[in-house]
Amino acid sequence: MLSKAIIKYINALQVKKYRNQHQAFVVEGAKSVLELLHSDFELQHLFITEEFLQEHGNKLNKGTRYELVTEQDLTKAGTFSSNNAGLAVARMRQLPNLNFKPSDFTIALDDIRDPGNLGTILRIADWYGIKSIVCSETCADFYNPKTISATMGSFTRVKAYYLNLAEWLHQLPKSIAVYGASLEGENLHRMTLQPQGVVVMGNEANGIRPEIAREVNRLIKIPGFGGAESLNVATATAIIIDNFMRHASS
Amino acid sequence: MLSKAIIKYINALQVKKYRNQHQAFVVEGAKSVLELLHSDFELQHLFITEEFLQEHGNKLNKGTRYELVTEQDLTKAGTFSSNNAGLAVARMRQLPNLNFKPSDFTIALDDIRDPGNLGTILRIADWYGIKSIVCSETCADFYNPKTISATMGSFTRVKAYYLNLAEWLHQLPKSIAVYGASLEGENLHRMTLQPQGVVVMGNEANGIRPEIAREVNRLIKIPGFGGAESLNVATATAIIIDNFMRHASS
Repeated sequence: MLSKAIIKYINALQVKKYRNQHQAFVVEGAKSVLELLHSDFELQHLFITEEFLQEHGNKLNKGTRYELVTEQDLTKAGTFSSNNAGLAVARMRQLPNLNFKPSDFTIALDDIRDPGNLGTILRIADWYGIKSIVCSETCADFYNPKTISATMGSFTRVKAYYLNLAEWLHQLPKSIAVYGASLEGENLHRMTLQPQGVVVMGNEANGIRPEIAREVNRLIKIPGFGGAESLNVATATAIIIDNFMRHASS
Repeated sequence: MLSKAIIKYINALQVKKYRNQHQAFVVEGAKSVLELLHSDFELQHLFITEEFLQEHGNKLNKGTRYELVTEQDLTKAGTFSSNNAGLAVARMRQLPNLNFKPSDFTIALDDIRDPGNLGTILRIADWYGIKSIVCSETCADFYNPKTISATMGSFTRVKAYYLNLAEWLHQLPKSIAVYGASLEGENLHRMTLQPQGVVVMGNEANGIRPEIAREVNRLIKIPGFGGAESLNVATATAIIIDNFMRHASS
């Protein structure tokens, strides 16, 4: 059974301020916990059910310390409406310096507020082999439990750099392509795109802010054929990145 | 101010059983309410704030009856955590018979349980001009408030037919292409796809069920380049449909 103190600690980690104070975050569900255990994140606590142990015990690293708990315990402590698997607390990691080279390809998120969207975009980046993305400081938090959950384990492989996005884009060499979606943009389906440069994705409601739009030097658009005015930002990111990668696939 | 009776009615419409009983559903938020008002759905109730009236009053059809309410009223009655715009109750509509022709193109959802995913897929269908999709009877409900909300208005343009998916696929002429995603499938980026036939998308956790997989006659895959094992089903749908439409765009 989980102590009141530990439940209080885990609950507190739902809030960014306390995550930063403790430099720790929560990972829930079988898939995400297993990915965490096989990553370089430092584990603080691991709470698993008997069921999880029976099914995945052989995947635990030797010497991994865990505590057996019930599904009720996990639901009380975490954010999932049901969780019959596990919950872990891990230490945040220090990122190495961001060193963006002209041959690199990344996604820059301008003010993406929904942690589910951020997590889905990290999962898309991981699928396409993009190891780091950049985020404006107003984006949802990488360590928000909803972000972590939506990544389905990709939080272990993709790094997110939070920075002043306008300044960062501005200091890039002018030869680097900075793509942004716009209704006036060129039809993605008609372009031969190389996965190099930066793809900027804007806020869910308001798109790319003017100070960021100024740094965009290539306008692109996803052609539409129906009545919808727009696509969800994670959906649009997936389509755009897929169009960049089609010439790289074997 | 909303009466207790109407709040109770709107709350009840969060549950499928009561939606079916009353043949009515709830639409929340400025964008969705405005799209509803300009659709052929029959309006039962319209509750809007003074703010919405001032901003969008000129878009209301002449003679539209509404009741002015507060943001607090809307939050109490609906499912949004905040809503300073409007909430409507509309009647479900009877769908015409599904008449799938060999030149048509549609998406078939096998057991998509999350209403947010269903809504996002309806929005994607709308973007690409797909007017009807088919759903197994176990899919999330089209009229679930979370589905409606995720469509961002596309529920007014895209129809969803709920049916026995295995039977429906089985009775299609054998000449119709039925596509399904599989790790053994052909690389989408290497194919020249025509938007004709049926694209089957499977359950979030378990993929396409065996009885449905038997009806698939073209295996395709989205090439991956990184560590993620899979993509969210709405994300994957978007990428696949975009690959089908690239030869159709102007």
